[in-house]
Amino acid sequence: MIYFDNAATSFPKPETVYRAMENFMKNIGGNPGRSGHRLSIESAKIIYQARKNLAKLFKVKDSSRIIFTANATEALNLGIKGLLEPGDEVITSAFEHNSVMRPLRTLEKEVKVKVKVIPPSKSETVDLEKLEENITKHTKLIISIHASNVTGDLMPIEKIGKIAKKHNVYFMVDAAQTAGALPLYPEKIGIDLLAFTGHKALFGPQGTGGLYIKERVELKPLKQGGTGSNSEFEEQPDFLPDKYESGTPNTVGIAGLGAGVKFILEEGIEKIKKRKKELTEYLLTKLETIKGIKIYGNKNLPAHRSFSEGGENKTSIVSFNIKNLSSSKISQILSEKHDIMTRPGLHCAPAAHKTLGTFPEGTLRISLSYFNTEQEINQLVKTLKNFQIERCKQIKTDSDRYLFASI
Amino acid sequence: MIYFDNAATSFPKPETVYRAMENFMKNIGGNPGRSGHRLSIESAKIIYQARKNLAKLFKVKDSSRIIFTANATEALNLGIKGLLEPGDEVITSAFEHNSVMRPLRTLEKEVKVKVKVIPPSKSETVDLEKLEENITKHTKLIISIHASNVTGDLMPIEKIGKIAKKHNVYFMVDAAQTAGALPLYPEKIGIDLLAFTGHKALFGPQGTGGLYIKERVELKPLKQGGTGSNSEFEEQPDFLPDKYESGTPNTVGIAGLGAGVKFILEEGIEKIKKRKKELTEYLLTKLETIKGIKIYGNKNLPAHRSFSEGGENKTSIVSFNIKNLSSSKISQILSEKHDIMTRPGLHCAPAAHKTLGTFPEGTLRISLSYFNTEQEINQLVKTLKNFQIERCKQIKTDSDRYLFASI
Repeated sequence: MIYFDNAATSFPKPETVYRAMENFMKNIGGNPGRSGHRLSIESAKIIYQARKNLAKLFKVKDSSRIIFTANATEALNLGIKGLLEPGDEVITSAFEHNSVMRPLRTLEKEVKVKVKVIPPSKSETVDLEKLEENITKHTKLIISIHASNVTGDLMPIEKIGKIAKKHNVYFMVDAAQTAGALPLYPEKIGIDLLAFTGHKALFGPQGTGGLYIKERVELKPLKQGGTGSNSEFEEQPDFLPDKYESGTPNTVGIAGLGAGVKFILEEGIEKIKKRKKELTEYLLTKLETIKGIKIYGNKNLPAHRSFSEGGENKTSIVSFNIKNLSSSKISQILSEKHDIMTRPGLHCAPAAHKTLGTFPEGTLRISLSYFNTEQEINQLVKTLKNFQIERCKQIKTDSDRYLFASI
Repeated sequence: MIYFDNAATSFPKPETVYRAMENFMKNIGGNPGRSGHRLSIESAKIIYQARKNLAKLFKVKDSSRIIFTANATEALNLGIKGLLEPGDEVITSAFEHNSVMRPLRTLEKEVKVKVKVIPPSKSETVDLEKLEENITKHTKLIISIHASNVTGDLMPIEKIGKIAKKHNVYFMVDAAQTAGALPLYPEKIGIDLLAFTGHKALFGPQGTGGLYIKERVELKPLKQGGTGSNSEFEEQPDFLPDKYESGTPNTVGIAGLGAGVKFILEEGIEKIKKRKKELTEYLLTKLETIKGIKIYGNKNLPAHRSFSEGGENKTSIVSFNIKNLSSSKISQILSEKHDIMTRPGLHCAPAAHKTLGTFPEGTLRISLSYFNTEQEINQLVKTLKNFQIERCKQIKTDSDRYLFASI
């Protein structure tokens, strides 16, 4: 089995992730912060350590400013709904995932928040001049995905951060695809809210994610409830992380996430970045040998493929189409006949596909993990080339042509 | 090690729960509903099957009306905030957990929802006459905990359901302590919204829970985002369960929860209920032999201890205090010196303790699982009795007296 769907969820995880989860389930099991007994305390230590590991990875000084959520979507909803009020304006990119666009469209409809979507420019994934022009005195928040989950292209978040700071506007980044894949230090580059998922490049299990909240940023919580703290009051505690973490947390998930982040800290984020870059380069070079392929995003510009001085311009995601072959059909055959897992379609990001001109058909997406290999890439490319040969052999009649047009 | 903190989280889980989670993590791992490949489909099947198992346990006809959430707290927040609007009135019991009281107090403060708390009567945990008197034309919702997490006492939810129906008011039940412990059929007894947690009597892992939403009950979602469905639209899908389930779900957690519910279905809820009742009776009888003990809730009335015709009057939770011994100190010594896990204090339910007259000191809580034994209960009671003997021996001077007053 070859797994190339790591932008949906990474698989496999490091062995230590499985072990941390199993250890929690079988040997600890307590409810963290809800009691004083040994198992409850051990459970609370797991949560504490996972938060510390994340703070170390993101170079965040105060780990209590990292809030655990069920996924990146919840973190984004917390940031967006916790901050925006009727009459506010929000600016975002043309590459956002529905986890940003759907909460925004809801607020637009229900409480008259104004949403402005900035298209890309010739040189950048977002037109920075247009972005700045669109800031008014009502603009409260700029939101940008860090790397498109469709093309892997990075947004110029450092530059956006500077513009946001200049105009005293909050800046939120959706790092679902980049946390754990690239060095990312919110306190260095003026990010006020950083939403991340646990189950992609951070190697945690599904059901984990979080939000870094910069000091002095006040959000309305999405949920209130028991926190194991200030239990004598019917009002939500106002200190972090409890203010935003109500109810029993996903301790087994956070145990796995903590182990995933520990793996990254031990391996080194630079080493991981370098290896994934190598693999992505290899994939791009090999894919380009396929006749009729159209690859979307930064690969089209060879100069862009190397590092820019400020960092990468791409994560390990590659999206493409092959002439006359539908992405869904290719993906289906890859899975069913060749045990190769890929993702076709829109990837929950219609806005990005409209920007790329691939709406509503979508693209075939290959997303690599640190654990993929060149051999797996060779196998994929060989299989894709064989599709084309098979296809040419079989198209002899008009009805064949009709049949294959649907592949 | 003896674990008596099952009302905080059950431990251990059935072996099949561990295996289901491990199997998902190591052999499946895909993101459900996000792709068409084999691992994604297998993952989606796990979610589907867990939902089906829950529907079977709760005798709910359409399993898509069961929404997965991160915990009971999220389910309660979704029901409360999804339904209530400025000017609405809500009626609740005097035994609610902060997972109900904190969202209600927030709405009261922020959007002028009026909250009415109904005290217990002589014969019931809620005064049904007072409850009915308090219904006005503005009353939209009645919320009741099913079993107090402090005393284990059951609320008369069937009777409340009838009153709610009579007045055309929505009825929400917090079944955090009872789902999986007792037969509970929302469609039979007029429950519009049933919130439950996965990690207590349902034997799932932490990070799981859910909300049953009756047909025709419309809630505003707490979160919007990618659902893997209708991906071409920036608007949230309006069908269930997707409308309320945004972002990657906690698939490994739901795999465990599905296995936990399967265990209950195979074992039989009646058998589980009977065994837990036996154990609770045994615990109560043994505890009553301790000098100076005060047990709270239904145990005080022996006639109440047996089943009423409509069902139980208590779950497997027992809360007590022993004269001159603080619950925190007993719990600490039980854990540190005797490896017995209990929970002292307020259990995130200040309202319940105010009702019982145990605020702010709280109580020591013993909460039993299907897997506890009479031998474990004997061990606990023996240890508690030894505390008292040790204490009497050592109190010789006033300073000793002072020391032990703090135990």
